[in-house]
Amino acid sequence: MRIVRYASPTGMSFGVLDGDGQVAQIEGHPFGQISFTGQRHAAADVRLLSPILPSKVVCVGKNYADHVAEMKTGDAPKEPLLFLKPSTSVIGPGDAIRIPPGSTNVHHEAELAVVIGARGARHVTEEQAVASIFGYTIGNDVTERDMQRADNQWTRAKGFDSFCPIGPWIETDLAGIGKDPADLQVTCTVDGELRQDGRTSQLLFGIPTLISYISQVMTLLPGDVVLTGTPAGVGPLRAGGSVTCAIEGLGELTNSVTGADTASTAS
Amino acid sequence: MRIVRYASPTGMSFGVLDGDGQVAQIEGHPFGQISFTGQRHAAADVRLLSPILPSKVVCVGKNYADHVAEMKTGDAPKEPLLFLKPSTSVIGPGDAIRIPPGSTNVHHEAELAVVIGARGARHVTEEQAVASIFGYTIGNDVTERDMQRADNQWTRAKGFDSFCPIGPWIETDLAGIGKDPADLQVTCTVDGELRQDGRTSQLLFGIPTLISYISQVMTLLPGDVVLTGTPAGVGPLRAGGSVTCAIEGLGELTNSVTGADTASTAS
Repeated sequence: MRIVRYASPTGMSFGVLDGDGQVAQIEGHPFGQISFTGQRHAAADVRLLSPILPSKVVCVGKNYADHVAEMKTGDAPKEPLLFLKPSTSVIGPGDAIRIPPGSTNVHHEAELAVVIGARGARHVTEEQAVASIFGYTIGNDVTERDMQRADNQWTRAKGFDSFCPIGPWIETDLAGIGKDPADLQVTCTVDGELRQDGRTSQLLFGIPTLISYISQVMTLLPGDVVLTGTPAGVGPLRAGGSVTCAIEGLGELTNSVTGADTASTAS
Repeated sequence: MRIVRYASPTGMSFGVLDGDGQVAQIEGHPFGQISFTGQRHAAADVRLLSPILPSKVVCVGKNYADHVAEMKTGDAPKEPLLFLKPSTSVIGPGDAIRIPPGSTNVHHEAELAVVIGARGARHVTEEQAVASIFGYTIGNDVTERDMQRADNQWTRAKGFDSFCPIGPWIETDLAGIGKDPADLQVTCTVDGELRQDGRTSQLLFGIPTLISYISQVMTLLPGDVVLTGTPAGVGPLRAGGSVTCAIEGLGELTNSVTGADTASTAS
């Protein structure tokens, strides 16, 4: 089932996207038993939002060997390397990635995103981890590479508003469409040029290991998102362009890239 | 005014704590115009919670010269060094800090905490920053020192559930009680031994600079918390003990320290 979140003239809702491009509105949130309101929209008539507003986005660095090699910042870690992106960095499909003022080195990082379900995850084993997963979507761990190097801590470089596109939908039954989350093609295309092309089978730490590991540290709440790392091929985005991250079975996440938006809360 | 959040037999509420130890319940949240329900409790009859549940906790590393010196990890940064603690790490006064399984090096870090108000803060100048501040409270940036060194990224070391005590109240008018946030004594006492004793006048980057800097990166939402850094004297906590962080005009934040709580969401 493809879960979307969308804005329509009557407000913001979760819905189920069917194969005919129709969105069926659901009552409340999609965790637990889903009930439909009966309201339907053509997907073209509504604006898709990030399919979830996570309380936190937990990310994993250096989780593909070929990306570790291209970064030239040491060996792959012996345990999953965790960092956080603030919830304010999340945007949806079609939203603009904003280049910070003066920045010239903002990179794309296409990633498989895991969305946590109603049970949450705290101190779960690798075997128990799958029961904590609601579904899968696409994430782009947008990163300002110069700031990442300068700060050592990655929070600023990866934390700008708009630096975490997520979407377009959450697939809750990859097996039902003949796909295995442990072996999906992940690509990123910038202005028509293929930049990244990997498979989740190359993950150094697989999804159950990541969920279990994170859950020993911090409780994962329903709707929280885990970004599983990016394959080789990261590179710059330029204002005026666009970036498409695609994952087998999960569709395409396309975002425009524009200049800084420096509107202030003080004005 | 001292804003608290508390649990009583009728539920969870915000309230105003007066000088007589009485809590006056307020309707909804404390941002904007406050209206009282008329319900009052003796503070001793309710359980104080963290005075706010922030959507994010933005922290500043290496922001006191004497702490930079004791850490022996290089010079003070040229710009504020940002990192995040997950909202799931937040606990309130009296709650237990849990030592992770196998850990022997969990440290206290007493800090002045700034709580963001109704306007939020996005692209504000240093001059505009004060209008984004709701009030001040005490934070303890609990840190697993061995993991901090091993991971390089600080997310795991500082992100465990219970690693962010905040409270006991938010003071919204420090000036009204004759205090200046730019010159407050900050202390930390562990099992009766004074460990940290600094003043916010020693901050390398002051509060307006921090709020403005962060607001150029990520939008600060109402209720978000900024931890401003810790003075020298950090050291280990041990299960069975307790830790009290105190700041002039803001009271005392005391937490017990106990062993791991490994209850699982899967059982």
